[in-house]
Amino acid sequence: MAELSRVTGVPVATIKYYLREGLLPRGEVTTSPNQARYGEEHVRRLALVRSLVEVGGLSIASVRAVLAAVDDPAVPLHHTLGLTIDAADAPTPAVDDPPHTAAAERIDAIIAERGWRLSPDPIARRAAIDVLATMQRVTADRLTGIAEVYAEAVERVAEADLDTVTAVEDRPTRVETALVGTVLGERLLAALRRLAQEHVSAQRFPPPPETPCPSPSAQDPSRP
Amino acid sequence: MAELSRVTGVPVATIKYYLREGLLPRGEVTTSPNQARYGEEHVRRLALVRSLVEVGGLSIASVRAVLAAVDDPAVPLHHTLGLTIDAADAPTPAVDDPPHTAAAERIDAIIAERGWRLSPDPIARRAAIDVLATMQRVTADRLTGIAEVYAEAVERVAEADLDTVTAVEDRPTRVETALVGTVLGERLLAALRRLAQEHVSAQRFPPPPETPCPSPSAQDPSRP
Repeated sequence: MAELSRVTGVPVATIKYYLREGLLPRGEVTTSPNQARYGEEHVRRLALVRSLVEVGGLSIASVRAVLAAVDDPAVPLHHTLGLTIDAADAPTPAVDDPPHTAAAERIDAIIAERGWRLSPDPIARRAAIDVLATMQRVTADRLTGIAEVYAEAVERVAEADLDTVTAVEDRPTRVETALVGTVLGERLLAALRRLAQEHVSAQRFPPPPETPCPSPSAQDPSRP
Repeated sequence: MAELSRVTGVPVATIKYYLREGLLPRGEVTTSPNQARYGEEHVRRLALVRSLVEVGGLSIASVRAVLAAVDDPAVPLHHTLGLTIDAADAPTPAVDDPPHTAAAERIDAIIAERGWRLSPDPIARRAAIDVLATMQRVTADRLTGIAEVYAEAVERVAEADLDTVTAVEDRPTRVETALVGTVLGERLLAALRRLAQEHVSAQRFPPPPETPCPSPSAQDPSRP
């Protein structure tokens, strides 16, 4: 285990935690009672778990559920990918107030218009409805119309995502690629969107030339 | 305060907490020492704070920093929007290992290629580099190429985002729209991407007809 920690850079305490939580298979038992043999698959699984938890922000329970599907060859690939996709999102309870009903109509109209064929009530649909209802509550109709533009943009993104998955032949690697792509891709998409926003904002609202741009690295959001 | 709680549906304890943390201006003092007068602007600010904290997942410190810029008319609009954009993201420390150096080159090449004009080292640039370096570490080159597609997609998204901001005349409403659009828009974008992924995945890897799709609402990621 000390060796596994050295190779991967993951602290021994963290490895023990992942073992206890069932996120990492136990090492092969050796003749010495205090030793176990860890191989290439442990190194790889450890890198995957760590990226999902530390960079992706997934809960231990979500990672466990996803890995169970990854490791079960009987689960059809599309369903495994679905689990993978859903894991990034905690299920949102269905809410029945008028803003949610209106938001649900909007989202379902977008799904129908784009011809998306989906399972009956995907977790992501409810998440989208919840966000749209909150936007409506806070900004009235000011954010109307962005959902349609977003839907068009993510269709191209999803095609690229699935291209990366399709390019891989072997099933575990394929599912791993989908998982990392979905969870980390979300972060990448968000970061690039903020860069694009800064660019477009500077075009629309040019800062006065006499005011030097504060260095964003000095903008500490935790300052009082 | 009881009245404010009733109108907004926010518990009194939460209102008190926001007051203490400086996220909500104090009510106007009345002749009664145990009463304060809350107006329309309190109702509105409370809805804003709540959406940022509860739906957007922002920290109290981030919300405070953003609101300070929102409330300061001396801050040029572009800088306020920049703060707004950055608030959604905790600053990522700069890392100097080879994967990060390679990822930084990729991201800077994308920025140059798209002609994005940015401040020297935006927080979102570092976030993008960090995600890309992690992707590389976990999946080798399998996710190569998605960043370029994402960048193109988010440019259209950012134009739509700034359209909603430009359409509003009055400055506080404008900044509020940008803030909610950035923070909640990120969630909407992620949810719609997952729906699009499900659609594209079903096209690429059609589930066998004899296997009924499990209802996603039954996919509880916290199940053992």
